[in-house]
Amino acid sequence: MDKKKCIVSILLDGDVKRITSELGSVFMDIFHKNNIYIEAPCGGKGICGKCKVKLLRGSVSEMTKLESSFLSQMEKEDGYRLACFTKILGDVEIAIEGQLEGAQILSTGLEYFVDISPKISKKFVQLDRPTVDNQRDDLDRLIDSLGIDNPHIHISLLRELAQILRSSDFKATITYDGNQILDVEKGNESKKSYGLAIDIGTTTVVCYLIDLITGQQIDIISGLNAQRAYGGDVISRIQYTMEEDDGLSRLRGAIVEQLSEFIHELAYRNHISINHIYNILIAGNTIMGHLLLGIDPQHIAASPFTPVVTQAQVYPASQLGLKLGRGSRVFILPHISGYVGADVVAGVLASGMDRREELSLILDIGTNGEIVLGNKEKLVCCSTAAGPAFEGANILHGMGGTSGAINTIILDQGKLKYTTIGNKPPLGICGSGIVDALALLLDAGIVDETGRLLDEEEIESEAGLKLADRLTQIGGLTAFTIVDARSSGTGEPIVITQKDIREVQLAKSAIAAGIKVLINKMDKDMEQIARLYLAGGFGSYIDKRNACRIGLIPAKLQHRIVAMGNGAGTGAILSLLSYEKYERTALIKNMTEYVELSSTPEFQKEYVNCMYFGKQ
Amino acid sequence: MDKKKCIVSILLDGDVKRITSELGSVFMDIFHKNNIYIEAPCGGKGICGKCKVKLLRGSVSEMTKLESSFLSQMEKEDGYRLACFTKILGDVEIAIEGQLEGAQILSTGLEYFVDISPKISKKFVQLDRPTVDNQRDDLDRLIDSLGIDNPHIHISLLRELAQILRSSDFKATITYDGNQILDVEKGNESKKSYGLAIDIGTTTVVCYLIDLITGQQIDIISGLNAQRAYGGDVISRIQYTMEEDDGLSRLRGAIVEQLSEFIHELAYRNHISINHIYNILIAGNTIMGHLLLGIDPQHIAASPFTPVVTQAQVYPASQLGLKLGRGSRVFILPHISGYVGADVVAGVLASGMDRREELSLILDIGTNGEIVLGNKEKLVCCSTAAGPAFEGANILHGMGGTSGAINTIILDQGKLKYTTIGNKPPLGICGSGIVDALALLLDAGIVDETGRLLDEEEIESEAGLKLADRLTQIGGLTAFTIVDARSSGTGEPIVITQKDIREVQLAKSAIAAGIKVLINKMDKDMEQIARLYLAGGFGSYIDKRNACRIGLIPAKLQHRIVAMGNGAGTGAILSLLSYEKYERTALIKNMTEYVELSSTPEFQKEYVNCMYFGKQ
Repeated sequence: MDKKKCIVSILLDGDVKRITSELGSVFMDIFHKNNIYIEAPCGGKGICGKCKVKLLRGSVSEMTKLESSFLSQMEKEDGYRLACFTKILGDVEIAIEGQLEGAQILSTGLEYFVDISPKISKKFVQLDRPTVDNQRDDLDRLIDSLGIDNPHIHISLLRELAQILRSSDFKATITYDGNQILDVEKGNESKKSYGLAIDIGTTTVVCYLIDLITGQQIDIISGLNAQRAYGGDVISRIQYTMEEDDGLSRLRGAIVEQLSEFIHELAYRNHISINHIYNILIAGNTIMGHLLLGIDPQHIAASPFTPVVTQAQVYPASQLGLKLGRGSRVFILPHISGYVGADVVAGVLASGMDRREELSLILDIGTNGEIVLGNKEKLVCCSTAAGPAFEGANILHGMGGTSGAINTIILDQGKLKYTTIGNKPPLGICGSGIVDALALLLDAGIVDETGRLLDEEEIESEAGLKLADRLTQIGGLTAFTIVDARSSGTGEPIVITQKDIREVQLAKSAIAAGIKVLINKMDKDMEQIARLYLAGGFGSYIDKRNACRIGLIPAKLQHRIVAMGNGAGTGAILSLLSYEKYERTALIKNMTEYVELSSTPEFQKEYVNCMYFGKQ
Repeated sequence: MDKKKCIVSILLDGDVKRITSELGSVFMDIFHKNNIYIEAPCGGKGICGKCKVKLLRGSVSEMTKLESSFLSQMEKEDGYRLACFTKILGDVEIAIEGQLEGAQILSTGLEYFVDISPKISKKFVQLDRPTVDNQRDDLDRLIDSLGIDNPHIHISLLRELAQILRSSDFKATITYDGNQILDVEKGNESKKSYGLAIDIGTTTVVCYLIDLITGQQIDIISGLNAQRAYGGDVISRIQYTMEEDDGLSRLRGAIVEQLSEFIHELAYRNHISINHIYNILIAGNTIMGHLLLGIDPQHIAASPFTPVVTQAQVYPASQLGLKLGRGSRVFILPHISGYVGADVVAGVLASGMDRREELSLILDIGTNGEIVLGNKEKLVCCSTAAGPAFEGANILHGMGGTSGAINTIILDQGKLKYTTIGNKPPLGICGSGIVDALALLLDAGIVDETGRLLDEEEIESEAGLKLADRLTQIGGLTAFTIVDARSSGTGEPIVITQKDIREVQLAKSAIAAGIKVLINKMDKDMEQIARLYLAGGFGSYIDKRNACRIGLIPAKLQHRIVAMGNGAGTGAILSLLSYEKYERTALIKNMTEYVELSSTPEFQKEYVNCMYFGKQ
C-alpha cells in the first residue's frame, strides 16, 4: 500500500516552497531531503531545541513532554514546534521565521534556504565511439551529450581532449557552465564539486569551503588580512600604493598569497583535489576588490572617490594568480560605490531585505559605517566617515575584538564589573565594551548630555557618586578608570578618556545622521523600519539597549534589531550555491541608490543634532 | 537647385542592393561611394575595359566610341556597359555578373560585394569627468558611451584604465565587439583598425592585410609553409607529431613563428602599429587548424578520421602564442570533417553557391581533391584520396607551379611547344602541363583509352607518327619525351612515363567518381550543374578543354567553369570584413553533409568506371 502524500508549504521571508512528503514524515527529515537548512547544532537529535518552526495551518503529531520542555509558554501559544520532533499528519503550512539566510554561520553552521543551483555543473557521460559512419569530432560528441551549442572551451583543454576520451573508453566527466566547457576528466568524477565563498575584509579574511553538490559547508578558515603589514585601514593601504613603486603589486601579492595558502590548506585537510574547487565567490569592500585584481584604487581615496570598476566580474583563477585547476573561476561580486562594496551587497542579499515589502535597515559598523535602507521597491545607501572608534581605533585603550579585550561592562549592585574575551586578564576595550562603558557613564550621570565627563563635585546621582573615585587625570585629560593597574593585564590602568568619548560621539552621530538622511531620502519614518540588521561581530556582541542609550542606534528600533553575523560571508555562500542569488547581486547593485553624504547639506545639520546624548 | 535622385538597383548572385544616387552619376563613382568593388585594374580610368556591368532596365548615357571598343558585339547586344563610362539618367537596374566574390584577388585586387561590418568596432569618446555628484566608476562611464551592458574586459586593461582616461582628459578610443571591451587608447585612434585574412595551406601560407574601416586590401605576403621541413603533406606531418616527443610542439612553433614574422613584416612595411591589428581570420584545412592550435591531429590520420574540433573558435592572439596587441583575436573558421576543412568552407562562402537556387560544384584539386556540390537548399561534400599528381608529386619529372615548371604544352602545326613559368629553362612539369601533355598524347593517339603508352609500331594517326620519335625507355618504363636533354634546365630529358600516366588516371578517376557520387547523393544530373568553380592556382592556369579531354572535369561542364582563384583567402577576407559573412560560415558547415567515400560502395564502382579516357 502506498503511503499517502501530503503537501508541506514552507514560508521563509516571503518565499514559499512546496514539497510533497509522505504522511508521518518528521519535518527535519523533510528539510534534509530537500536541502532546506535550519539551525540544529545537535543534528536533529532532539537535544538542542533550536530547530523551531511555526505551524500556520494543518495537522501534526502531538507535542511530547520532551519537546514541550524546549519551548516557552508564549512560543507554544504562537504555534512553535521543533522540527526534529514533529510529524506531519496531512497537508501543512509552516514558517521558518526570524532565521536569517545563513545567519550565525560562524557559530552554528549553515541555516539558509536556497535551491542548490551553482553556476557550475558536472556530468558523467558515456559517449559513442567514433565510427567511419559517424566521424563527428570529439568536441561535438561531447557537447551533444550536454545538449548545448556554440561551446567555449579553453585551448589547453582542447589539446588534451582526444587523449582524455580515448584513455577512458569515452567515459568522462564534463564540468561546464552553460556553453562554457571548463574541464573534462576521465571516468566518473561528477560528485566532486566544491566552491569557496571568501569575505575579504580590511581586517579579517574568511574563507568557507562549500560542497556544491550537497550545499554543505565543509570547512572554514580565517585570518587577519595579510595586507595589514602595509597599513591598517584602506586609506593607508592606498597611500602605500601611491608612495611605493611596486606598492600595488605588493598588496596584490599579499592577498593572493594568503588566499592561495588558505585554499591549499582547506583542500589538504579535507582531502579534496585542488582541481575540484571551481567557483570562488569574493565579497569584499571596493578597495579590497581593486587590490585583489591589481587595479589602482587611488582615485577612490580622494574626491570624487571614483572606482575603476564596480560591476561584477568573472576571471579564470589563473588570471588572478591563484594556482588552481583550469576549471576554476573567480567571481567578484558587484560593488555599489567606492565606499559601499560587495560586502554590503552580499549583506543585503543575506538579509533578503531587497525582496520584502517591509522596510529594513542594515548597519555595518567598521572603519566606515555603511548603511542601507529600503525594501523590494528601492534601496538607498551611504557610507559615513564614522571613524573606527567602534573597532577600538583612536581610543586610548581601545583594541579589536580579540583575546583579552573587555567586551561587556555592567553595574552590578552599584559595582562596576566586566568580562573579557577568552576570560583573559584585560588588555584593552573593544567596541561592545566601549558602548557599555559610555552607556554606564551616562546612566550614572558621570557623562552629561553634551558628552562631558563631569568633575567629581558636579556629580549628583547616587550611582555616580559611588563611582566617582574612578575619575582620574591622564595626560591633562579627565578619564574614567575601568580597570586599575593591579587588575590589568598590561600593568597600567585601563581608562576611558574625555577624548575617547568625543571620538565615540563623532562616530555615533555620523551613523545616526546617516540613518536619518536615508530615511528622509526614502520619504519614510523611523517607525516604518521593521528590522534593523546589525552586521559583523560587533553586531552580534553589542548590548542593544546600551547601543540605543548612547544614540548609536535609534531607540525606537531597539526591539527590531537582528544580529546578522557575517553578512558578507553569508551572501557570498548564497551566491556560490545559487545562480539566481548570484544574479540577484547585480539587481541589488542596480536598485541601490548611493547617497554621497559629504555633498548632502542635510547630513551636516543632522550630524550636529545627533552629537548629543539622550536626544533622539 | 538640388540634383535629382535616382535609384540604382544592383543584382549580384541573387542579392539586390538599392542605392540612391544623383542623376548623372557614373556607375564607378556610385560603386566607390557604396563600397561595392568591381574588377578595375586601371582604377576606373577607362583603360582596362574590365568593369563590365549588364544593364537590365532604365536609362543611361550613350556609348562612346572608346567604351564601344572594349565590348564585343555580343556583349553590346546583351546590354553590357563599362561602369567607368556610363552615367545614370534615371532609375536603373543593373547586374554585376560572373564576378566571384573576391575572385582573382591575388592578381587584380578586391572585387567583392559586401557591407563592411567587421566583428570589431572602434569609437572615439569624450567622457564627462567624475564629480562628487557623479561618482560612477570608470568602466561604467566608458560603457555608457557605447550603450552596452555587462561588459567583458580583460583584467590587464582594467589595471590601466584609470591612468589612460586621466592622462587623456577622458578623451579615448574604445575598441570593442558587442559587450567585449578589447582595448582603450588615449585620444582619437578610431580610424586605425586592421585585420588579417590568412590562408594556411599545407604548401603555401598567404596573409592579407586589410583595412577594416575602408575594406581595402593594403598588402599581401605569402610563402611556403614553414612546416614543410617536417613533411610535405599532412599525413607525413601527423606522423612526425606521433614519432617525435615534441613533434606537435615543433610543428605548432613553426607555423606560429612564420605567422608572427609575416604579421610583423606587414605592420612594419605599412607603418601600422601591431596594436591596431585586431581580427585575424584563419582558413586552413582541418589538420593545419589543429596544428596551429597545438591540438593533436593523429586521430584524423587513421579511420575513422576523427578531428578533435571542427566548430569555429575564437581565441585571444596571445593564447596562440602570437605577440600582438591585447585587442587581437584569432578566429578559426569552421571545418566540416577531418579532410574537408575551413579552406573549403571559405571557398563555398566566396563562391556564394550556398545562397543560390542553381546547382554549383566546387573542385579543389590538391593533395586531396575536395568536392562540394549543392545550392541554397543543401550542400554535400567529399574528399577524394586523389593523390598529389596534379601538384606534381609522384610524377617522375613533376614539380609545383614554380619558376621553370612547364605549365602549358601544345601542338603547333604538328610540333610540340611548351611554355615555362617565368620563361626559364624547363626544370619539370607542373599540374597544368601534365594535363596538357596527357590530352596531347590522347589526341595524337599515342596513349590509348586504357591509358597505355603505345609502342611506336602501334601508332596509327598522322599526328602520332610525327611525335613517335619522342617515345623512349626510362628505367624499364615506356616514356614520352617533352624536352630533350639539350633544352632542359636540368641537363636531363623531361619525360612523361607510363607510371606517371597511371598516377594521373588514379587521381582523375577519384575526382570524377567523387563528383558522380555527390550528384547521385543530391539526386541531380550533371546537366543541372550551372557552374563549376575550380579553386586554387591550378584552377586558374589549367586548360579547360584539356582537363575535360582527360576526364578530370566532366565534358558537359567545360563551358561552365569559373576559375575562383584563392577561394580560401577570399572567404577569409569576406569573413573578416563582414560579421554576417563570418556567421555564414557556421551555417555553411551546418548545411553541408559530408560523404565518406571509403565507406560508399558506389564510389568504388564509379572509380573503376572513370579510370578510362574518353568515356564520360
